[in-house]
Amino acid sequence: MNQKYPSILLENAVNEFAKLPGIGRKTALRLILYLLRQDNSMVESFSEALLKLKQEVKYCSHCYNICDDEICPICSDKSRDASVICVVENIKEVMAIENTMQYKGLYHVLGGIISPLDGIGPSDLEIDSLVERVSQGGISEIVLALSTTMEGDTTNFYIYKKLMPYDVKITMIARGVSIGDEIEYADEITLGRSILNRTLFNESYKM
Amino acid sequence: MNQKYPSILLENAVNEFAKLPGIGRKTALRLILYLLRQDNSMVESFSEALLKLKQEVKYCSHCYNICDDEICPICSDKSRDASVICVVENIKEVMAIENTMQYKGLYHVLGGIISPLDGIGPSDLEIDSLVERVSQGGISEIVLALSTTMEGDTTNFYIYKKLMPYDVKITMIARGVSIGDEIEYADEITLGRSILNRTLFNESYKM
Repeated sequence: MNQKYPSILLENAVNEFAKLPGIGRKTALRLILYLLRQDNSMVESFSEALLKLKQEVKYCSHCYNICDDEICPICSDKSRDASVICVVENIKEVMAIENTMQYKGLYHVLGGIISPLDGIGPSDLEIDSLVERVSQGGISEIVLALSTTMEGDTTNFYIYKKLMPYDVKITMIARGVSIGDEIEYADEITLGRSILNRTLFNESYKM
Repeated sequence: MNQKYPSILLENAVNEFAKLPGIGRKTALRLILYLLRQDNSMVESFSEALLKLKQEVKYCSHCYNICDDEICPICSDKSRDASVICVVENIKEVMAIENTMQYKGLYHVLGGIISPLDGIGPSDLEIDSLVERVSQGGISEIVLALSTTMEGDTTNFYIYKKLMPYDVKITMIARGVSIGDEIEYADEITLGRSILNRTLFNESYKM
């Protein structure tokens, strides 16, 4: 049932908020009523932060991560191993992997994954630029760290085929039962794969 | 663990979004990455709709509902029963009750409920203006439609006491087992109250 808003200004704001993924009209209204109770300055800084980001956002010319300069802090960090590139969907995965503090190579941010249903093809993603980086040499390993969905697998395979001509090792992050998870509740595919890809006991603790 | 954002612009935008209730930093980042993928014009209209609402929002001088004019469409509707006022927390309840199409009186929007923990006292709400409306006469019934929480009950009781001196009937919306709910799964308090406040069978269907 379409709700009748008593104010057009309010309705416009609800419509804009409800365009965001996962935000329905009820949540939109709740968030807007919250903003209305705040100071003018808070709403202004909210709007400005978004506009400024959208207008001034830059993408690293090497890895296409979001950054404030030409080259992101990770790519310009000389202490990192520039011969290993981890391929991720977007900045969220970069941040998650960085948080583990277990990876010292560089990244390549695709900006999405191949998803024909959403109209996203290889040319919409930073795949050519990845091939370009590899073709320039000096890269020994590409670590694929995309989601284990049909789209992720498709993208993995597409990249794999594109990089085949080059002398570069292509790896995937390990898939298995999460640490802390009960074995009996793990899904069959994960458990099956974790048995196939079992690791030497003493090597599992090397980190 | 505090996440490290590769861009200050991005971090500012995430910080602003994460101030909204129920939006954590992960959701904020997801929403912002979505906005970044959209056209400039979409982000501009998003920001503008919010700013415009905040700067130009008006509250009805009678019922304090959000509206675009001095008096809201409900208060200025001559076909409605101006002798009945339904007291609600905010505009969301007005919209929900209007959607039922079962209520033809006016409203009074408190703008919140008494909540000492959040520092909201009676003076922060539109309670004095409600008493003022009643004191001017012409009101026969006040329908209390606040949440059945401790805060809602406190506010109900406070309003009840404030309106006692006036010759006005004070009612509450009916509480009971929801239509469509299984009786066996109803909570004890609701079920108990629905037995105490049972209605005549033929009267239940009068609407």
